[in-house]
Amino acid sequence: MKAWEDKIRRVVPYTPGEQPKRPVIKLNTNECPYPPSPSVEQAMRALDADTLRLYPDTEALPLVKALSAAYGVEEDQIFVGVGSDDVLAMAFMTFFQGEKPILFPDITYSFYDVWAELFRIPYEKVPLDGTFHIGKEDYYRENGGVIFPNPNAPTAIAEDLDFIRDILRHNQDVIVIVDEAYIDFSEKPSAKELLDEFENLLVVQTFSKSRAMAGMRIGYAFGSRELIKAMKDIKYSFNSYTMNLPSQMAGAAAAADQDYLKHTVQKVVATRERTQKRLAELGFSFPKSEANFVFASHKTKPAREIYEALKKKDIYVRYFDKPRIYNYLRITIGTDAQMDQLFDALEKILR
Amino acid sequence: MKAWEDKIRRVVPYTPGEQPKRPVIKLNTNECPYPPSPSVEQAMRALDADTLRLYPDTEALPLVKALSAAYGVEEDQIFVGVGSDDVLAMAFMTFFQGEKPILFPDITYSFYDVWAELFRIPYEKVPLDGTFHIGKEDYYRENGGVIFPNPNAPTAIAEDLDFIRDILRHNQDVIVIVDEAYIDFSEKPSAKELLDEFENLLVVQTFSKSRAMAGMRIGYAFGSRELIKAMKDIKYSFNSYTMNLPSQMAGAAAAADQDYLKHTVQKVVATRERTQKRLAELGFSFPKSEANFVFASHKTKPAREIYEALKKKDIYVRYFDKPRIYNYLRITIGTDAQMDQLFDALEKILR
Repeated sequence: MKAWEDKIRRVVPYTPGEQPKRPVIKLNTNECPYPPSPSVEQAMRALDADTLRLYPDTEALPLVKALSAAYGVEEDQIFVGVGSDDVLAMAFMTFFQGEKPILFPDITYSFYDVWAELFRIPYEKVPLDGTFHIGKEDYYRENGGVIFPNPNAPTAIAEDLDFIRDILRHNQDVIVIVDEAYIDFSEKPSAKELLDEFENLLVVQTFSKSRAMAGMRIGYAFGSRELIKAMKDIKYSFNSYTMNLPSQMAGAAAAADQDYLKHTVQKVVATRERTQKRLAELGFSFPKSEANFVFASHKTKPAREIYEALKKKDIYVRYFDKPRIYNYLRITIGTDAQMDQLFDALEKILR
Repeated sequence: MKAWEDKIRRVVPYTPGEQPKRPVIKLNTNECPYPPSPSVEQAMRALDADTLRLYPDTEALPLVKALSAAYGVEEDQIFVGVGSDDVLAMAFMTFFQGEKPILFPDITYSFYDVWAELFRIPYEKVPLDGTFHIGKEDYYRENGGVIFPNPNAPTAIAEDLDFIRDILRHNQDVIVIVDEAYIDFSEKPSAKELLDEFENLLVVQTFSKSRAMAGMRIGYAFGSRELIKAMKDIKYSFNSYTMNLPSQMAGAAAAADQDYLKHTVQKVVATRERTQKRLAELGFSFPKSEANFVFASHKTKPAREIYEALKKKDIYVRYFDKPRIYNYLRITIGTDAQMDQLFDALEKILR
């Protein structure tokens, strides 16, 4: 061993969904099958490359103003970051500071425990019930903070406002984060409706799914002035300029086009409903999806075998080799044509 | 006080250089006065907005390949991040893990102690000598790691390869980081020449200064395979996708145009030499600059007064209200026309 090697911090790196280089049917990372709003392309074309020589606006004001107008939330109640991963990591750093464990579901977004470990935050995973639902009463006890996605991932199950209100009522002395990466695909309202009621609520959303801009890395949070200011203070304390100019301009353009967002979501939801019907006919069961993916298990064929057989046919879905969910596939909703190819392949595999 | 308020981590936020919204002569944040390579605009125009729906390449391969070709460094010896602040913060997290204090100059880039505090790394500031030079012997003692900029900021003083080699020879059991944000403006070679000699050396550079792309947020590091792999493991463990697609494409285009880089640097250096001559005539003294700024003190007029008088004339330079350097101004090199306006203003202020 070299003398300096013990100075290196070692971790087990996270394995993201495969990003194959050759053309495949890619239903494994919950991307949107449709392009972003045409206004995004216009914003990129309009960008004057000469202005790149200057540092970007620290507060990403063009984007913050557009989000404020689109959602009717005050500018000082909005925090933006380089993808919702950046926003969430910053929220963990800012709000989960106590000695008591933070609480989140055992089956959920796989970065929560990673960030908790990274920032040395004690945590406890709260098991979902037998039907993969969050038991709200499980969060009615002393803790250092609460975070859960709604809809949850990879289960695709969404809860209503009363459910979230109940969790907030029982957690008035900590920060509660609702991670709404998939909320646009749900019929349930966003928890931002509760912002006036609860100053300790943070609602996190993203441009990566419904706005079809995963390649742009834009996430944002709504919260009380006090929460948002605290997050900004932490962020600016160690990196003042993170969101680059193209993201600020393209993000602002996309946020201004809420009609296009609704249109995209309608198409994805229509295909999702069709997909669920067809998957049921093929012998799959799944929680009713309120996201842009279906979390499905087959009655006879093990998920891992289906995953591998699909991969051989150049159709990528997501498989998690983890307790409780090792017999499930997370299948992103693609175009109708892509889903038809999936159904054809599944028919052959399951025959 | 509300019940949840004690859950918030409080910090003193960093104050970045002012970014005035109206047109001024902006010599306060070391931006480049010239636009980026024309290939950057072409890359932005060529970007297909439809591809933004997909997550960007985790490893930012287009950019890594372009840097590898431009600098003759192997791909697996290159780490890229969202500005060199991101790269440096990741390096602090990965390499400064011990109980012993890391060492850096007392007058240097103001984020080093911020990151050390944030990641709870013990540190010790080593005073520069009376002429603002780094005393290399001060680093010949037990420590948890070493970091310094070369050229240093805000002093603009650069050291040669032998100096850096000596520090490395005396620090073979820790990681040594040389932060080369301004190296392109110096006649001294980059420490990357020492990569084959020292596997514990990390060299960090940026697109924000000489490549005129501060608005794009691109930084990178060169190091041994082992150091680069450790940084990637840490980074991917908590955020797999940070560099967006426009940065990857525009960055690759800029890296491929080394001729343009040299041309820009020549122009800035010519103006810097002229600026130093004129500032000396006006009664300023300063260390000989090897960066894109001059760190100057006037023989009679206090720096703060000059700073404020210039600001009233819409000319922004940087003033640090800190021990040892409170009588200095950091003046970024702008265009010749901008510097002429500065000289005119200074003549009036100093009359």
